[in-house]
Amino acid sequence: MSKGVVVVGSVALDSIKAIAGEHKDILGGSATFFSLAASRFTDVKVVAVVGEDFPKEHIEMLHSHQIDTEGLEQVAGGKTFRWSGVYSDDYVERTTLDTQLNVFETFQPKLSEEYQQTPILFLANIHPALQLDVLNQTKKCEFVACDTMNLWIDTTMDTLAEVMKKVDLLTINDEESFLLTGKRNIYLAAEEILKMGPKYLIIKRGEFGAVLFAKNKRFLLPAYPVTNVIDPTGAGDSFAGGMMGYLSTCDTIGFEEIKRSVVVGTLIASFSVEDFSVTRLEALEISELEEREKYFSEVTGFNSFKML
Amino acid sequence: MSKGVVVVGSVALDSIKAIAGEHKDILGGSATFFSLAASRFTDVKVVAVVGEDFPKEHIEMLHSHQIDTEGLEQVAGGKTFRWSGVYSDDYVERTTLDTQLNVFETFQPKLSEEYQQTPILFLANIHPALQLDVLNQTKKCEFVACDTMNLWIDTTMDTLAEVMKKVDLLTINDEESFLLTGKRNIYLAAEEILKMGPKYLIIKRGEFGAVLFAKNKRFLLPAYPVTNVIDPTGAGDSFAGGMMGYLSTCDTIGFEEIKRSVVVGTLIASFSVEDFSVTRLEALEISELEEREKYFSEVTGFNSFKML
Repeated sequence: MSKGVVVVGSVALDSIKAIAGEHKDILGGSATFFSLAASRFTDVKVVAVVGEDFPKEHIEMLHSHQIDTEGLEQVAGGKTFRWSGVYSDDYVERTTLDTQLNVFETFQPKLSEEYQQTPILFLANIHPALQLDVLNQTKKCEFVACDTMNLWIDTTMDTLAEVMKKVDLLTINDEESFLLTGKRNIYLAAEEILKMGPKYLIIKRGEFGAVLFAKNKRFLLPAYPVTNVIDPTGAGDSFAGGMMGYLSTCDTIGFEEIKRSVVVGTLIASFSVEDFSVTRLEALEISELEEREKYFSEVTGFNSFKML
Repeated sequence: MSKGVVVVGSVALDSIKAIAGEHKDILGGSATFFSLAASRFTDVKVVAVVGEDFPKEHIEMLHSHQIDTEGLEQVAGGKTFRWSGVYSDDYVERTTLDTQLNVFETFQPKLSEEYQQTPILFLANIHPALQLDVLNQTKKCEFVACDTMNLWIDTTMDTLAEVMKKVDLLTINDEESFLLTGKRNIYLAAEEILKMGPKYLIIKRGEFGAVLFAKNKRFLLPAYPVTNVIDPTGAGDSFAGGMMGYLSTCDTIGFEEIKRSVVVGTLIASFSVEDFSVTRLEALEISELEEREKYFSEVTGFNSFKML
């Protein structure tokens, strides 16, 4: 029996240019990717904000995946958060062309009684003060993970440090781990970060995979081999959604379960990047996930063997 | 019973600046790192050239590891190949400060009758015309691997293409795979490269590990987690040495054996970078390798599991 998960983050309209095509005002945002990914495993409750201009069909699509949008506030007369960016032809570089926070600028996440009781929580990349505020609203939280970004490390480190003390798991990328610690080696950075509060840490390395850390424990996983990258937007949030969705189906959450959840997150992210927006996630069948899981296990496993 | 391996490459005196220290005229070169790494597993025969200035103690050290230097030509009156470079403090960037080819400029590798009969051959990164010349000298070669670099892809592609048709395994890095194929995705690049001749391909990704390819087969391995990088010079050649040394102990060489050899190469490289020159490789005990192998298997393995 799954426990259900609450995600607090952004729901946005993205305009994206990439070698694979150009799309204007397509559905995006951290909470969106997370929800679709997690909904494969568990009941998802979304806390986010959109404007009056937000297309009704997107909300209907979320509902069709049993995603609870009671916490998705719609501001009358407001405009939805918009982001636009362009990817280099090899997808290595991403340049932001425009950011319009709109209703997201004054976003004050509110958790209803039911949401407060949900045992699994993901704080997507939003202002640490808001993350802290959400943490203070929760009542029966069993497992909390959070994401963050270089902007908050640079400008709001004190508040972020408070958040880090209260979460079970932090997910960041390698550059952010360096920025947080001044180290330039993820293994050294991880040691420092675990001292800052979180019991678990996942350092995401994009196309090179992810590494999970706990005290004296590590788990290294390459990325799933994807040959047809179309749009990497939301890959990290899809990863988190798959991971947290899987964890919410576990009776207890320890290193072994999180290890498996990193595999699930990796697989989900591999689908997410194969189309624009959440298109590929919407169509994703569990059988496809299982197929990739089997293949991934084959191409990453080696049996321990005696050297000489 | 191991088959023995011949390596053709460079023996050099390196001058290196890094955050960990500065050293002048220390023992380096692709054949050197390769030999020390491979000598843990098999008899190694070196084909390379040095000048009259080459310290006798280095040759004695190679002999103390049972490395055969009959093919190491010493040119009377000549000067040894020298390379000098500096690493950025995070070891991400390497800048060449000076290259003096000296006796390496007119290097003409000659294989003695015994060397020609050795079944395993590694062509380190030298001019493709020399690699081709060595291939034509071999008689009972069972397995040949070769390395190359961007310079030869840019300037001597025709000859390199001939070499690629004659080798079993090519080892290159990701940038070189892109340069060879015009693709910007290693999985797509690998498909193209396998069509160019080699039955097996290893794409090295430095701190992010390596990927092994054969037709419709892949094996993805992260790098071993190293926290005390001192000098990454020769990591790729140490990797190749461990790999080929291991392969020369195998009765037959197929995908499974090469997969294991990639693990061995990864482990050997993890030691190589922990000190300047071949210092760490010289001191390396098999028990240390076994210990890392066990740990590596633990931190990279995940059991296949049913999703839902």
